[in-house]
Amino acid sequence: MFSFELLAKEGEARAGRLVTPHGPIETPSFVAVGTQATVKAVSTEDLRKIGNQVIITNSYHLHLQPGEDLIEKMGGLHRFMGWEGPLMTDSGGFQIFSHGAGKEHGVGKIAPIFPEEKDRGQHLNSKKGKPLVKVDEEGVEFISYLDGSRHWFTPEGVMEIGRKLGADIIMVLDECTSPLHDYHYTKAAMERTHRWAVRALVEFQRTCDNSQALLGIVQGGAYRDLRQESATFIADQGFDGYAIGGSLGRSKEEMHQVLEWTLPILPQDKPRHLLGIGEIEDIFEVVKRGFDLFDCVAPTRMARTGTLFAKEAERFRIHILNAQFRDDLQPIDEGCNCYTCSNYSRAYLRHLFVAKELLAIRLATIHNLYFLESLMRQIRTAIREGRLATLSREWLSLV
Amino acid sequence: MFSFELLAKEGEARAGRLVTPHGPIETPSFVAVGTQATVKAVSTEDLRKIGNQVIITNSYHLHLQPGEDLIEKMGGLHRFMGWEGPLMTDSGGFQIFSHGAGKEHGVGKIAPIFPEEKDRGQHLNSKKGKPLVKVDEEGVEFISYLDGSRHWFTPEGVMEIGRKLGADIIMVLDECTSPLHDYHYTKAAMERTHRWAVRALVEFQRTCDNSQALLGIVQGGAYRDLRQESATFIADQGFDGYAIGGSLGRSKEEMHQVLEWTLPILPQDKPRHLLGIGEIEDIFEVVKRGFDLFDCVAPTRMARTGTLFAKEAERFRIHILNAQFRDDLQPIDEGCNCYTCSNYSRAYLRHLFVAKELLAIRLATIHNLYFLESLMRQIRTAIREGRLATLSREWLSLV
Repeated sequence: MFSFELLAKEGEARAGRLVTPHGPIETPSFVAVGTQATVKAVSTEDLRKIGNQVIITNSYHLHLQPGEDLIEKMGGLHRFMGWEGPLMTDSGGFQIFSHGAGKEHGVGKIAPIFPEEKDRGQHLNSKKGKPLVKVDEEGVEFISYLDGSRHWFTPEGVMEIGRKLGADIIMVLDECTSPLHDYHYTKAAMERTHRWAVRALVEFQRTCDNSQALLGIVQGGAYRDLRQESATFIADQGFDGYAIGGSLGRSKEEMHQVLEWTLPILPQDKPRHLLGIGEIEDIFEVVKRGFDLFDCVAPTRMARTGTLFAKEAERFRIHILNAQFRDDLQPIDEGCNCYTCSNYSRAYLRHLFVAKELLAIRLATIHNLYFLESLMRQIRTAIREGRLATLSREWLSLV
Repeated sequence: MFSFELLAKEGEARAGRLVTPHGPIETPSFVAVGTQATVKAVSTEDLRKIGNQVIITNSYHLHLQPGEDLIEKMGGLHRFMGWEGPLMTDSGGFQIFSHGAGKEHGVGKIAPIFPEEKDRGQHLNSKKGKPLVKVDEEGVEFISYLDGSRHWFTPEGVMEIGRKLGADIIMVLDECTSPLHDYHYTKAAMERTHRWAVRALVEFQRTCDNSQALLGIVQGGAYRDLRQESATFIADQGFDGYAIGGSLGRSKEEMHQVLEWTLPILPQDKPRHLLGIGEIEDIFEVVKRGFDLFDCVAPTRMARTGTLFAKEAERFRIHILNAQFRDDLQPIDEGCNCYTCSNYSRAYLRHLFVAKELLAIRLATIHNLYFLESLMRQIRTAIREGRLATLSREWLSLV
């Protein structure tokens, strides 16, 4: 029920087709983030009209609310959220990390994300001094950020959650490390992640009915030998695809290094997913390195604060609350054919944001997602026609 | 460019057609409230699909943000907000009242709306002891709730705002009184409202290009002789239609009395609008008394808190956050054909509300508006077929 076909290559960039039981995904593809079984502020009908191909939900969040048992009882995630297309679900390893070591170290995926908390010491991940997250060989124990209840994730348990949710593509449980973890800890965590990957695969194969595919996740922090060791080990297990997980270093340069060390080791004939990267400037970078799928909350999160994609703007974005847009009759982006740009002016969008009207957020989200999908369509066509380098130069010269 | 035709009567209830430069309105019709040039949480495309015929915006709010000059520059309200159908705009008299005497007296349209502030004395309408609203013969001075700036509304100025906004149907500036105002004050305010109505009409006729219609507003509080005097005076001016404004007494019974005193005096061949009434239980009441249009924020406001219309529920509403809906696969209302009911379960809606996802509010608003529109279609058909009494019995027996 799954297949992955490479249709064209330009350098390391690949145009392909990933077929799932809920339809094909033309790659490379952006994966819209629908953490809580909804892409924030838009409906699945909006997403179909935008041309979005695939959504990634989050097992950690859905386990806490409304719970995988409820979703299974409601007929699975596709039916529950009204989305008939391909669905992925992340294991929640990164979310557990970001409430645990990430918070403790005051860091996010690349750069620090909690700068104001950086220097507050070792027990920032708990209000009462007890850690919110505890990792051992068996799995991860964590406390719900919603109600303080205790939860326990194991590699096998996460496979069961994935099976109950019924997403087409699920991921193994991994342990994310922070760029502030030392070599010794990063190596130990990576080795544990490898043992977890083997356990997950055994459990997956025991219960698998061929309606789901399983991605393995490469860890190893920003250390060359660890990333190479991890890529080799995970690739050897024969997963249906591969994700590069974890903290990707302290800068974009370090991230690029991690990708350079890792990608050549992964099999060519399986899809590769990059977790949590998706700003416009990064997209050409990750496509050129040979990724087929990538997800990121940035486009939808930016939309909610009025930061909107526009081709001819600095860093491809305008901030619609700026006074200069007060009486601007133009659409957000002149070349964009999205619902928002086809019907509304910058002036109206700005008014909605100033007046704190909810419609603002939906219209902005539709635009940002459509803008990205439109770029991805251009990128796929360019790869098939051997024009990716040209397209990339055209866009990046605008930055 | 305007016409109003009565197609059928059953008792005092009327089925008609109000033609505007932006299309016809089949009456009786619910008017969706789009205070700030958007019906909260839905797009105009949503409203077209719902079958909504007409939107009412608010001159007071739009004057404060983004300002009528900007909207005129952007091509008028229709173009600005992307709505090609009929538009009304309220003058803002009630909003000024609710920040002034309404707050001071701790009362709303019928029942108290600020119970917690009721006993705090005379200067509740200002944080510094100065009143936020000052009414004199010339007009109303008030302070913006947004930024503390001073504004001045006159009957003539409100006509100019209406002209700049470009709504099809505009309303005169009136002074709303509270049920706690005595006979003497209510009479004085009514007489001032009458002088303002004459001034508004003179200004309207001076600048009118036949693309807009003007409604007069009847005041007079809960006093029989004043309501009758006001209805007689306002009807004599020859407005394009009539609205019953102001505070309608202390109870639904007092409101019904006010309507009984007033409606027989208004001309049969002009549309009648009731400002701010629109819960399901009230709809049959106002239709049977001969209203053609009515607006209310209740359906959209209720939606935002998860209170959803359902025919077979107590008071025609369910609260979706109730635990009983946790695993309920049914749509909100079994007989409803709205987008929400066609695609999503109560369980999913409840999950979205619990998870504080924005999609919840849009889906709930679409449902409540569609449910009302669907009821209004049934009511119009029933009047034309002489079955309103039967339809009303069928619904009200469910309460």
